[in-house]
Amino acid sequence: MKIIPTILCGGDGQRLWPLSRSIFPKQFHNFVGEHSLFQQSVLRSFSSENAVIVTGEKYRFVVRQQLQVIGRDDADVIIEPSKKNTAPSIIAAACHINHHNPDAIMLIMPSDHYIPDTEILNETVQKAALAIEPGQIICFGIKPDRPETAYGYINTQMGDGPLKKVHQFIEKPDQETAKTFLQSNNYLWNAGVFMVRAADMLAIAQKIDKEMYACVSTSYSNSKRDLDFIRLNVPSWEAIQPNSFDYAFMEKSTHIGCVPYSESWSDLGDWNAVARENEHDPDGNIIHGNAHQIDCEGSILWANNKDQVLTGIGLNNIVAVAMEDAVLISDRSKTQTIKMMVEKLKSQNIPQATESQHEYRPWGWFKTISNGDNFKVKILHVYPKEALSLQSHQHRSEHWVVVTGTATVVRNDEEFTVQENESVYIHVNEKHQLRNETSDELVLIEVQTGEYFCEDDIVRYKDKYSR
Amino acid sequence: MKIIPTILCGGDGQRLWPLSRSIFPKQFHNFVGEHSLFQQSVLRSFSSENAVIVTGEKYRFVVRQQLQVIGRDDADVIIEPSKKNTAPSIIAAACHINHHNPDAIMLIMPSDHYIPDTEILNETVQKAALAIEPGQIICFGIKPDRPETAYGYINTQMGDGPLKKVHQFIEKPDQETAKTFLQSNNYLWNAGVFMVRAADMLAIAQKIDKEMYACVSTSYSNSKRDLDFIRLNVPSWEAIQPNSFDYAFMEKSTHIGCVPYSESWSDLGDWNAVARENEHDPDGNIIHGNAHQIDCEGSILWANNKDQVLTGIGLNNIVAVAMEDAVLISDRSKTQTIKMMVEKLKSQNIPQATESQHEYRPWGWFKTISNGDNFKVKILHVYPKEALSLQSHQHRSEHWVVVTGTATVVRNDEEFTVQENESVYIHVNEKHQLRNETSDELVLIEVQTGEYFCEDDIVRYKDKYSR
Repeated sequence: MKIIPTILCGGDGQRLWPLSRSIFPKQFHNFVGEHSLFQQSVLRSFSSENAVIVTGEKYRFVVRQQLQVIGRDDADVIIEPSKKNTAPSIIAAACHINHHNPDAIMLIMPSDHYIPDTEILNETVQKAALAIEPGQIICFGIKPDRPETAYGYINTQMGDGPLKKVHQFIEKPDQETAKTFLQSNNYLWNAGVFMVRAADMLAIAQKIDKEMYACVSTSYSNSKRDLDFIRLNVPSWEAIQPNSFDYAFMEKSTHIGCVPYSESWSDLGDWNAVARENEHDPDGNIIHGNAHQIDCEGSILWANNKDQVLTGIGLNNIVAVAMEDAVLISDRSKTQTIKMMVEKLKSQNIPQATESQHEYRPWGWFKTISNGDNFKVKILHVYPKEALSLQSHQHRSEHWVVVTGTATVVRNDEEFTVQENESVYIHVNEKHQLRNETSDELVLIEVQTGEYFCEDDIVRYKDKYSR
Repeated sequence: MKIIPTILCGGDGQRLWPLSRSIFPKQFHNFVGEHSLFQQSVLRSFSSENAVIVTGEKYRFVVRQQLQVIGRDDADVIIEPSKKNTAPSIIAAACHINHHNPDAIMLIMPSDHYIPDTEILNETVQKAALAIEPGQIICFGIKPDRPETAYGYINTQMGDGPLKKVHQFIEKPDQETAKTFLQSNNYLWNAGVFMVRAADMLAIAQKIDKEMYACVSTSYSNSKRDLDFIRLNVPSWEAIQPNSFDYAFMEKSTHIGCVPYSESWSDLGDWNAVARENEHDPDGNIIHGNAHQIDCEGSILWANNKDQVLTGIGLNNIVAVAMEDAVLISDRSKTQTIKMMVEKLKSQNIPQATESQHEYRPWGWFKTISNGDNFKVKILHVYPKEALSLQSHQHRSEHWVVVTGTATVVRNDEEFTVQENESVYIHVNEKHQLRNETSDELVLIEVQTGEYFCEDDIVRYKDKYSR
């Protein structure tokens, strides 16, 4: 019995802004513990099978890098050309899994939830895998510990076997309804975790939404390998009508089971949810990082950067998140308004709405540390054995100072190495390439001079990542 | 009749932290308008005479630089070896003014208050200068517009001439007393602005506090010119018992007058005072810089840096100040606790308590833009015709990339110029000097590599500023 973890990693959650931004969303951050939520979801994989990850174009290199860090870069990464909600993502994964392991059971999990107790979850998974019937989809139902109005509920009833029968899926209830659900034993939170045989999933999709099935399976059949990625075919993907897995299949399928899970689980849906999973002081404050308080109560002070100090005085029920380039301060009862704030910033073209100081590339990442009128300074991290493209710039010169590792530099017709504490100059229009041929990370400071510093001032002659 | 503005510029206010820090305090910041409070106090000088400025060792180069920007670098700058409160500062200034202009009238002003209406203040100053009697000290009394408990009051009574008689100085009153003061016409705020003839000031000091007078006048007589500064003599200065001008002289002198001033004045004593002088939106919010709010009321959102966005949601009566390296969020009723927070940070050796990202030097200033384990990146601004010392470092190498202007570089026995977009490398232990021999500012990026980056890794061989 093969269980293949299928991890959905396409979300771009705004409710945890400013940490979570479209370019580097929630799942890639460490909100609890030492690994990102995405890494945690891969690490709790419950089987010796490689995970299948479905993600978006712009996250592919972050995904690859975060997998590398935890030694799981053998996972299969499927790239969606665009966001179509969860139903098409799951069918695409089913196509892929069915192609390689027709009998395998998919364990479908979001990449941005927090489930601390891996052991008991694993027992539940194994139990569900033993109990699953042909053609059945099993959902995981969490035993509520509070009348939560932000979650969907599953109305269940004890069946004969280890699985509960599912009567109904219920959208976010009001406070009163949530209270009655909490008192009953028959209402569980819908955790967005599902189990289904890959072949069954395809059959169900074909039966319930023929059109979606046709588009996704065509897109998968015409997918291309690009480096380590499986790129779905664009035109057939673009024809898909977006839909959620819950709405498209769970609510329409006739053969559903529910496995209950009574341990701790959180969707980390907003800063209050993050607070619940972190330790608080006797006054109910969550103090994270270089943060300090006097006379605060029930507040969250989240300092993201060790070089920036965050201080709170006399605050009550406030969440404050400090980053070098963005600060959020909100009443905790108003965290649902954060989305509106992000939209407001977007409408004013304020880059922090969606972009991040760290930008990820196939070869590594960089961070802009200073913006002048006629210069820009960046720190570049180049992964072992990776290389930037052979390129030139029309409007800027570049000075590189290697601070860690060894760079191999191509400049016009020369090729040479630049050691730690050495530097090199690339003049406007000179063809150049930066490579890290060593097994260790390369770190360098880049000082750009000129008058135009946008990323579009780049002519690429050769690129191992086909950009 | 010579009126010589005497500006006290030694304060290191913590109540406006994180903007105001010991290394770069309140008076050097722009809280209202386009100039710093110090610059505003120099610009409202009311006479063609050069101002006399009394400041501390660590502020001398900021003072000089801010004077240069407003074209007032002909001011006399007296350097106090240490802080001894206002009485000794004023006697030192009196010594200096009496030495050059025995008949001159001193107009003594703090450097960190805000007085928007220069014209009417000037009329008041001229009126006081005409009315001042031999041996008299005139204080400026502000007509209160609220029952302020944070100020000292002057109990006055209408006299025969344009000046009011002074009955008594009253320390910060309680709320009830402040209310009765407001209803009476005889209680004015003590603005810390005084007028006295220099020669009279010395006579008064000699009579009331012989010992302080002796120490200060000896310190002044033995002062030394150092560049543009008048450095008071250290040993005699150190013998002084600190005391405030109010306590040492105003409350003890028998010949005091008060000139009333009914226009707007503020000591900008805390963030609430800063808020009163800035425009608010219909919901009573002060939004400064790159700050944005939704559903806030009566709050202050102060964004210091254009590259950092500050957002507030659902806040009520909150002050939030965002800087790249420090963020303060406080209930507005608790701003008096900011001092305690600064002490708390100090006790934990958190540099932001007193230090600033910008550090001022005689030759210009620098800002640290990145701190790595084995590197540090700074932006250096070198003023025209200035030079860093001839120096070497035992533990770090330095790469300089000139981004604006032309540098003259000494490296061991060589001397050469480095143009915009050129770079130079200084190896560990190499003797080197950086000079700006041009008439324009020089800006460069310095990448330090090594393992120890403290300012004390410096051997100086020659320094035009005698450091």
